[in-house]
Amino acid sequence: MTITSPDPSWGPSQTPTTALLTDHYELTMLQAALQAGTADRHSVFELFGRRLPEGRRYGVVAGVGRALRALESFRFDDEALAFLGSRQVVDRPTLDWLADFRFKGNIWGYPEGEIYFPGSPLMVVEGSFAEAVLLETVLLSIYNHDSAIASAASRMTAMADGRPCIEMGSRRTQELAAVAAARAAYVAGFDATSNLEAGRRFGVPTTGTAAHSFTLLFDSERQAFQAQIDSLGTGTTLLVDTYDVAEAVRTGVELAGGELGAIRLDSGDLAEAARRVRRQLDDLGATETKIIVTSDLDEWNIAALSGAPVDGYGVGTALVTGSGHPTCGFVYKLVARAESADPSAPLFPVAKKSTNKLSIGGRKYALRRLDAQGIAEAEVIGIGEPPNGDDNDRPLLVPLVTAGEIVGAEPLSVARDRHRATRAELPLDALKMSRGVPAIPTTYIDSDH
Amino acid sequence: MTITSPDPSWGPSQTPTTALLTDHYELTMLQAALQAGTADRHSVFELFGRRLPEGRRYGVVAGVGRALRALESFRFDDEALAFLGSRQVVDRPTLDWLADFRFKGNIWGYPEGEIYFPGSPLMVVEGSFAEAVLLETVLLSIYNHDSAIASAASRMTAMADGRPCIEMGSRRTQELAAVAAARAAYVAGFDATSNLEAGRRFGVPTTGTAAHSFTLLFDSERQAFQAQIDSLGTGTTLLVDTYDVAEAVRTGVELAGGELGAIRLDSGDLAEAARRVRRQLDDLGATETKIIVTSDLDEWNIAALSGAPVDGYGVGTALVTGSGHPTCGFVYKLVARAESADPSAPLFPVAKKSTNKLSIGGRKYALRRLDAQGIAEAEVIGIGEPPNGDDNDRPLLVPLVTAGEIVGAEPLSVARDRHRATRAELPLDALKMSRGVPAIPTTYIDSDH
Repeated sequence: MTITSPDPSWGPSQTPTTALLTDHYELTMLQAALQAGTADRHSVFELFGRRLPEGRRYGVVAGVGRALRALESFRFDDEALAFLGSRQVVDRPTLDWLADFRFKGNIWGYPEGEIYFPGSPLMVVEGSFAEAVLLETVLLSIYNHDSAIASAASRMTAMADGRPCIEMGSRRTQELAAVAAARAAYVAGFDATSNLEAGRRFGVPTTGTAAHSFTLLFDSERQAFQAQIDSLGTGTTLLVDTYDVAEAVRTGVELAGGELGAIRLDSGDLAEAARRVRRQLDDLGATETKIIVTSDLDEWNIAALSGAPVDGYGVGTALVTGSGHPTCGFVYKLVARAESADPSAPLFPVAKKSTNKLSIGGRKYALRRLDAQGIAEAEVIGIGEPPNGDDNDRPLLVPLVTAGEIVGAEPLSVARDRHRATRAELPLDALKMSRGVPAIPTTYIDSDH
Repeated sequence: MTITSPDPSWGPSQTPTTALLTDHYELTMLQAALQAGTADRHSVFELFGRRLPEGRRYGVVAGVGRALRALESFRFDDEALAFLGSRQVVDRPTLDWLADFRFKGNIWGYPEGEIYFPGSPLMVVEGSFAEAVLLETVLLSIYNHDSAIASAASRMTAMADGRPCIEMGSRRTQELAAVAAARAAYVAGFDATSNLEAGRRFGVPTTGTAAHSFTLLFDSERQAFQAQIDSLGTGTTLLVDTYDVAEAVRTGVELAGGELGAIRLDSGDLAEAARRVRRQLDDLGATETKIIVTSDLDEWNIAALSGAPVDGYGVGTALVTGSGHPTCGFVYKLVARAESADPSAPLFPVAKKSTNKLSIGGRKYALRRLDAQGIAEAEVIGIGEPPNGDDNDRPLLVPLVTAGEIVGAEPLSVARDRHRATRAELPLDALKMSRGVPAIPTTYIDSDH
């Protein structure tokens, strides 16, 4: 154990490099392998999940673009090296090796927005043991978080069935996890986020309504609504449940007329309140005014509101915490290695022999088997070589990094479109909210044996 | 809704300012209040939780130091302003106001590591409405995350009862949430983390063992162990469950002798395996070699292992996901305001009148009532003025920011010591693992009525 005395530097959210977003042991394993002469053995690591979260029928891959960007910044700068040296995390030869480090291997992966199932080889990293093992922590962090959010978000947008979903959970998760969550939700079909940094950094559309504090700031609700309409226009969304909903709706329509953009309900029985407010709005002639609901929504509550006159859902806590499953449980395992650094040397499949943690050795390939109607039938995983598929089937691994160069970057809108298209391929059962099993089976085809 | 087209900038983990870690509506409310002339009304906001997570008996405040640092970086720089302008989030007068923004108010809060209960006024922010409302999102993000982790961590270290706990969950949470989680766990009594950035940024001690991939890289387990011992010394920790545990332990002791630092068990029935390995180590003369267990530990599993010969716990997923409660559900509410900007103008308590979301208007003060033996009896919250306490009682709010200057920064070790001391004050029931109610009641004393 390296003991460092806590110092008073209490810092925020900046990191000049992603290289220290890494577990201590990745570097000590590197040191030992360098000294033993095995660090450059040609190796294949794989990122995958052993199972879906309990009861879920599919998962959504997200974080691919962020992972590629993190890889680009994965350099041990002077400050990182000074830290590692001063704390004696690793020895001088290892520090020298790290100073020159740059990933030069190859990575294939499921593209962002794609659906995944148990065992899907979400990322295949090929390179020297040294360069591939170093990436373990940061790749898992990004994939485990972003895919958990996207997987929950996808169920919510499926239940919303075309009604817009707005991500507004920033306050309920770590401040930078919030930015990643807004991005992942957008991939999985959310229309906008409240998070401004997600707008700036990733181009996610941003939106907002108003808080109760705004109404309470004024001497009356009428004054607050008037101020909001004066400044933001009649198309704004008024929050109507600070005092009395019916009176607030009446006031809002009186001030904005039929032009009032929307009202937001944030408490009570949302279905019943929405019905009552819809009738009231229509009676007042505000037939175009929309009703946005918020307040602890999740995929089940969204589904339960499908019959209510709701025009949009604002989702917070349940989204950013993965709706009961805040992490995917993905692992990153050495699945094959050679006995030398030669990329053409034969790769031997390797796997831990453990009682309760299944790993399957050997390099994986994957395709989604589709029937004649284009409906997904199976996740077919080839071990050692690609499985045979027919014209309907879709290969799932695409090049992300080739000889250290990032080749898999793409606009976020492409990932969002892909999610919509690949979710639409799933059998109908996949979108049920009841607890279930994976919507299609995972089939292994082992050519190594 | 501001529609922005997604662009291909897919970014990592850097943010030059914390000002955009903010919900869109904070800025539009600001704009409307500026235009209406109410933005400078003297206001008091309060950050608190309405309840503890279901079944929990106490919570732990964490994130205070990070929040103060985030406040320091909360400036709208040119890039942020350009984004807000180009996306038309707010108008020109508001942008000009933001360009000059710097929080000049006062903040009091529970110091880091302190215990909290339902209704505890964890942070009291006093200033103009404008400056206080802007901080809502980032303060909640930090407090909701860090306190959730610390609250779970505290239960784990309580159950570990002096045996060291090591945080190793980085891979199971967003990459920068991981750094914050390691810090929060340290506050709540964890001894070390695997996260190197938490070591660099916050001085948390870092440590590590080895992964199965390291063993699989070598042609035999013996060669892997030899390489690890050669490089890292006999005091290293060997991972012994890649193939056969008993054989691995034999090999490890053969290579390192009685000097072997520790072995790690990462699968199977940990209690039974630890007993078997302890006997084997003792029989081999390695009586000083420690046993570290990992593999989906949480506070209940740690408690269940209390009778097993275990010398340390490595905790991952359950810790970084708050052991079932990944967020605290804290809210940030306007509780009092004046009708002018004059800090001496009378403050009126304000609160939403909602059916299912309790808020209590009025500025809060708090003390922990302790009995003659120094055991906590009640959380006493004064509304409008400080409650009377006797010499045993401890006031809970300390100055964090005074007239915009940060005065509450402190070394992390102070927060860690405070956690240990304040947890020790709780009645014995507080540390039970069974589902319960808050260990002490929250009592309100209302001088406003």
